Amino acid sequence: MRATTIHAPHDIRVEEVPDAAIRRPEDAVVRVLRACICGSDLWAYRGEAARQPGQRIGHEFLGVVEQTGADVAGLKVGDLVVAPFTWSDGVCEYCVEGLTTSCVHGGIWGAVGHDGGQGEAVRVPHADATLVKLPADAVSDDRLLTALLTLSDVMGTGHHAALGAGVRPGATVAVVGDGAVGLCGVLAAKRLGAERIIALGRHQARTDIARKFGATDVVAERGEAAVAAVRELTRGQGAHAVIEAVGTGQSMRTAIGITRPGGAVGYVGVPHGSATGLDLGVMFDANITLRGGVAPVRSYIPDLMPDILDGTIDPSPVFDLSVDLDGVPRGYGAMDDRSALKVLVTF
Amino acid sequence: MRATTIHAPHDIRVEEVPDAAIRRPEDAVVRVLRACICGSDLWAYRGEAARQPGQRIGHEFLGVVEQTGADVAGLKVGDLVVAPFTWSDGVCEYCVEGLTTSCVHGGIWGAVGHDGGQGEAVRVPHADATLVKLPADAVSDDRLLTALLTLSDVMGTGHHAALGAGVRPGATVAVVGDGAVGLCGVLAAKRLGAERIIALGRHQARTDIARKFGATDVVAERGEAAVAAVRELTRGQGAHAVIEAVGTGQSMRTAIGITRPGGAVGYVGVPHGSATGLDLGVMFDANITLRGGVAPVRSYIPDLMPDILDGTIDPSPVFDLSVDLDGVPRGYGAMDDRSALKVLVTF
Repeated sequence: MRATTIHAPHDIRVEEVPDAAIRRPEDAVVRVLRACICGSDLWAYRGEAARQPGQRIGHEFLGVVEQTGADVAGLKVGDLVVAPFTWSDGVCEYCVEGLTTSCVHGGIWGAVGHDGGQGEAVRVPHADATLVKLPADAVSDDRLLTALLTLSDVMGTGHHAALGAGVRPGATVAVVGDGAVGLCGVLAAKRLGAERIIALGRHQARTDIARKFGATDVVAERGEAAVAAVRELTRGQGAHAVIEAVGTGQSMRTAIGITRPGGAVGYVGVPHGSATGLDLGVMFDANITLRGGVAPVRSYIPDLMPDILDGTIDPSPVFDLSVDLDGVPRGYGAMDDRSALKVLVTF
Repeated sequence: MRATTIHAPHDIRVEEVPDAAIRRPEDAVVRVLRACICGSDLWAYRGEAARQPGQRIGHEFLGVVEQTGADVAGLKVGDLVVAPFTWSDGVCEYCVEGLTTSCVHGGIWGAVGHDGGQGEAVRVPHADATLVKLPADAVSDDRLLTALLTLSDVMGTGHHAALGAGVRPGATVAVVGDGAVGLCGVLAAKRLGAERIIALGRHQARTDIARKFGATDVVAERGEAAVAAVRELTRGQGAHAVIEAVGTGQSMRTAIGITRPGGAVGYVGVPHGSATGLDLGVMFDANITLRGGVAPVRSYIPDLMPDILDGTIDPSPVFDLSVDLDGVPRGYGAMDDRSALKVLVTF
């Protein structure tokens, strides 16, 4: 089969690899219909996260079950399924608590020795616990299928950030980061009943999506000026709930700076210097909570999927470029130079 | 009147100062019966927190109302009262939410221009909202009066740490810091229903108090060895709820290292390097929450006081040295060289 591999920074290839195949009785093989490129893939693309030459890449996909191992009971060949970005066994203590990302038998697509999502097919360990069935008729609805793909990462991650930030009905929320996760954070905050949502961003195409997703205010300033602007919008107090969806020192500094005393920062940006933006003196004096991390999106799919199916939320606008498998390297380039927000890969 | 002043690092004096007096109609003057020295006072004593020469010091006291301003309605001369370590107006948005430490008219005893707790009397701004009445007959019960003094800071701060750490019935809790706040954290965790409480400490007099307060295990190791020991006690997982009651990089590093995935660190140690102990990569991967800060103890007094009055909890053993006002400088020395755990000042 063909799949995306990364050989060095900026060296993304699509090449022939061994076919995805059942190795253990709990495995399934999924033929990929939709995949995408994640902002976090760019850390590897830019050489800021180490990869072995030739390692697979991509951790977001949905598709059709093509084979099942002998112990797979809840899935059958032909089922339309979405995969969260990590697999999990569903029975360990952490899985039972919903923290599937800490599963003792878990892992992430594209890890060494495993298929990545940006390929024709994927071997899925612990398939029963990992994959979630989608309604079969979604396959014929292009827009819906694209929206459901966000359950694999960005929509669940935005939701995790909103929960971490403590979004409640009536809350004032601010979102640092105008990437796909930040935008899904806006959508998640709106869904959770936020009254006011301040999106920080300066690219109009993105802030337009933020407004479509529920942002009531847009702040184009950055750094100290952004902090001042958000404070002015919030009677000097800051936002109850702040979503940090970037992961740099600057973004975290801004997030802390715009949080109201007693509020929380929900952070889902993979840390790349963000610790340097944590002013613990400020956080201490104002009782600002820091809560977040890698999102256990598997646990959120049952909550979020019905709202996508019935149209309550539609995250599909986060995709603004579509490529086929051969176009994946071009997709990385477009996300790297920010000419694309998020790239959809169709098969 | 006479009060404690700080002139330079290690230069604590007891000297004549202007009498505490009503300045605004919401003020009261409290004649101090009991005060104490806080671990956080040592930051000033050691020159690690700046003070103006001659500034008052001390922020924990209880006593008797001696004068009331014209607008004070809920207190009368002769009332026995305890003061939280910050005053607050009781009516601003933050106070209404219980975050009295962020009161827009708040402040802390010993701030420039204000009386400190380690003196004969204190002018109390916003007296109605700040002071909490104690039963009059407590004045004749020496042990009870000492226990009630902990409502001014350490017991409430330990409780804040336990809440921040997310202590719940059945939880496994670990406490980093064997000072008075850490020990009150043990007591607070026990009160909130923790099943297992691991106290980290190597001074037997202190760990004996920890056991008396409810600790089920004591870990004497430090640093990496402490992390390994706590992990061994918790099937490799770490504790659900970890109290950080020191404020250094080392203590925070240990706290993060012993937190179970999905758990939380409740931090109340005034940050003195503790940000350097935050490994955001570890926290991100394991979804570890950081929650805490300066404790709004005023809000906790109504909850905690009844449990002290009826004997459910007795924090008084955190005091192991008693001095009179003239003995305060000696008390600082004893806490600085760790020969005393916490020093009571009687008048």
